[in-house]
Amino acid sequence: MSPALITFVSDFGLDDWFAGVVHGVLLERCPEARIVDLTHAIPPGDIARAAFVLEAAAPDFPPGTVHLVVVDPGVGTERRAIAVRARGQWFVGPDNGALEWALSDQSAEVRELKAEKLFRMPMSRTFHGRDLFAPVAAALARGESAESLGPRISDPVRLAAPHPHLVRADHAAGGMAGPERLMGVIAYIDRFGNALTNLDEGSISSAFPGAGERDLEVHVGGRLIPGLSRSYGDAPVGTVVAVIGSSGRLEVAQVGGAADSRLGLGVGDEVFIIRRN
Amino acid sequence: MSPALITFVSDFGLDDWFAGVVHGVLLERCPEARIVDLTHAIPPGDIARAAFVLEAAAPDFPPGTVHLVVVDPGVGTERRAIAVRARGQWFVGPDNGALEWALSDQSAEVRELKAEKLFRMPMSRTFHGRDLFAPVAAALARGESAESLGPRISDPVRLAAPHPHLVRADHAAGGMAGPERLMGVIAYIDRFGNALTNLDEGSISSAFPGAGERDLEVHVGGRLIPGLSRSYGDAPVGTVVAVIGSSGRLEVAQVGGAADSRLGLGVGDEVFIIRRN
Amino acid sequence: MSPALITFVSDFGLDDWFAGVVHGVLLERCPEARIVDLTHAIPPGDIARAAFVLEAAAPDFPPGTVHLVVVDPGVGTERRAIAVRARGQWFVGPDNGALEWALSDQSAEVRELKAEKLFRMPMSRTFHGRDLFAPVAAALARGESAESLGPRISDPVRLAAPHPHLVRADHAAGGMAGPERLMGVIAYIDRFGNALTNLDEGSISSAFPGAGERDLEVHVGGRLIPGLSRSYGDAPVGTVVAVIGSSGRLEVAQVGGAADSRLGLGVGDEVFIIRRN
Repeated sequence: MSPALITFVSDFGLDDWFAGVVHGVLLERCPEARIVDLTHAIPPGDIARAAFVLEAAAPDFPPGTVHLVVVDPGVGTERRAIAVRARGQWFVGPDNGALEWALSDQSAEVRELKAEKLFRMPMSRTFHGRDLFAPVAAALARGESAESLGPRISDPVRLAAPHPHLVRADHAAGGMAGPERLMGVIAYIDRFGNALTNLDEGSISSAFPGAGERDLEVHVGGRLIPGLSRSYGDAPVGTVVAVIGSSGRLEVAQVGGAADSRLGLGVGDEVFIIRRN
Repeated sequence: MSPALITFVSDFGLDDWFAGVVHGVLLERCPEARIVDLTHAIPPGDIARAAFVLEAAAPDFPPGTVHLVVVDPGVGTERRAIAVRARGQWFVGPDNGALEWALSDQSAEVRELKAEKLFRMPMSRTFHGRDLFAPVAAALARGESAESLGPRISDPVRLAAPHPHLVRADHAAGGMAGPERLMGVIAYIDRFGNALTNLDEGSISSAFPGAGERDLEVHVGGRLIPGLSRSYGDAPVGTVVAVIGSSGRLEVAQVGGAADSRLGLGVGDEVFIIRRN
Repeated sequence: MSPALITFVSDFGLDDWFAGVVHGVLLERCPEARIVDLTHAIPPGDIARAAFVLEAAAPDFPPGTVHLVVVDPGVGTERRAIAVRARGQWFVGPDNGALEWALSDQSAEVRELKAEKLFRMPMSRTFHGRDLFAPVAAALARGESAESLGPRISDPVRLAAPHPHLVRADHAAGGMAGPERLMGVIAYIDRFGNALTNLDEGSISSAFPGAGERDLEVHVGGRLIPGLSRSYGDAPVGTVVAVIGSSGRLEVAQVGGAADSRLGLGVGDEVFIIRRN
């Protein structure tokens, strides 16, 4: 069997030793684990961003992968610690919404982490990444059973993220005339200045059945982008394009540039798609 | 036996290829090693900060771990290269004080690195991380004997770091009246804006025998913090708290915020603890 | 046999999950691979900088190493994907000049990557790092044959990088009098502010046969630096020195400081060496 894969997301940054110490605990307890750092640059306590990174990256990992998420502003309080079995993978972290992608699986199995025999003792109240979450992730990577982690719970904290929704012309705010709009938001700005939205291929194709890529237009930041592209390179340098990106989400990009600064875009900004006339 | 753990601290940053090349040398010479990057964000030549990171992180690693520290402003000069066996682990780096935590162990065994057969040849005079320290760390991870490294030395360069000390009321500067003060300094600001001091649980409990966490108060940046906490989350958001952190040191933190900017704190600032009236 | 080494250079940064996902693909397809991140801080699309990092770092890795370079502003366009066997190692990346160091080997074998059976399907048009380059790098690390990758090509895109050249006194621009000049440029500024040039030991010794380190002088940024050094520490703090650095290139450095800001140096600036009078 291949060595277990453990991914790791945190808000620890790379300037201090915190992420390294978590690696040490993982390797001490599961020496054969292969650890993949997804990012440690989540802004301190930014649960929604951690949840987005997990949702974007986890599907690219094989079944059996253990995803460790330590963005934990409530460390040391009564917030619960959980592990979630969903979509053929394991997710370990605080019960604060960061694991939303796992929890959104209807058949997710959620366990509250209560098995102190798995923890690193004495447990600090300020570094559960080291003392609680990493030991549990290592145990799962070694094949620990779900039952041994703690009791199932049915009320994990969910993340109130905006979902794509269709606004019919006759219900639109302000008595808007015109075609139906598939409404979304910008959910993430990446390093290249691409604005990733929460509109995925599935929601687009069910909102506009039968529509081809040239039949739609995207509105964002006061701008109309005609048609969807499949690549950043389909148009001349400087062109703003709407692309279905590598994780199946609509992205607003600028060929050879940064769309976010070009259009003044930020997380939470509204974006919508309509069928072209 | 588990694969050897090698930790790695440097001032190389992550923009260039230097840390990667050191990884390559470690893996070429000890393919089964597991390498943990503690941080490469030490400011260039900041020996004291490297020493603090090592002191904070090394105790969380298992016996037998090899710690590689390459913060080496004197590379190519006559400064010695050393390996230190202390506290059940190995420490490899320049003889400039960066390994202070190992050297402060009374039973530390210090070897000057002289065994050219272990080095990577021809040796540059500007990149001993690659040519000298990494090869020796890899050799130790493979089980190389202490004796083969080079001769024992008894005069390694020590770091002149301030230590906690008790100021009795009648000796206090300026004829200070009032209770005894346990004096310390802020030794490190972490990514979350927590100000880590050099006051550890041991020095606090021996200075104030029998004192509970509510019996003490912390003075820092012109501010009085009543009582010690065990968690960042013990008080309302915005509260400044004094916490015994995950490495057993007193930290000044702000619940849900950054204490350093809130209080204007920096490394070297004075902090003291007194018994409350 | 030792596990395969795969190095990885990209412009993905470390804030997003892109580099992590590539690690996941490499480990899923070659679980025994050891992955070394050279840097992910290449500015977006900066092919010349990626090529320099590869040239500087690759020689320090053992034969059989697979170097993966994903700086790919043309992803999704008609640009080709290639693998190059050169100097006993493999290089995988887009056909845009980033692999120049491999291509400059006269006996390089260049293959266009056409074997879809090796790719990750369905292939996105925006993330060939994940879907094409990483799978091929993993296959090579597992021992895949060159022939199976795709057809040999003879016209890879070459990088138009300036090369060192000798200007004879009587041909110098502006009718320059005086000795021959070995002309070069600053090719890279590193984290320490050292200015690495494209002048290597070989070009210096063939331009000035028999010259010792004290017989030469370096001109850069309007400044004359007498003699070449072997170490940053050969002169008092603050001195600007010309050093043959760890990868055999002439560097302009300041002892205990940053030469680039001291002298106002940047990539592309002219530097030349003459024989001293």
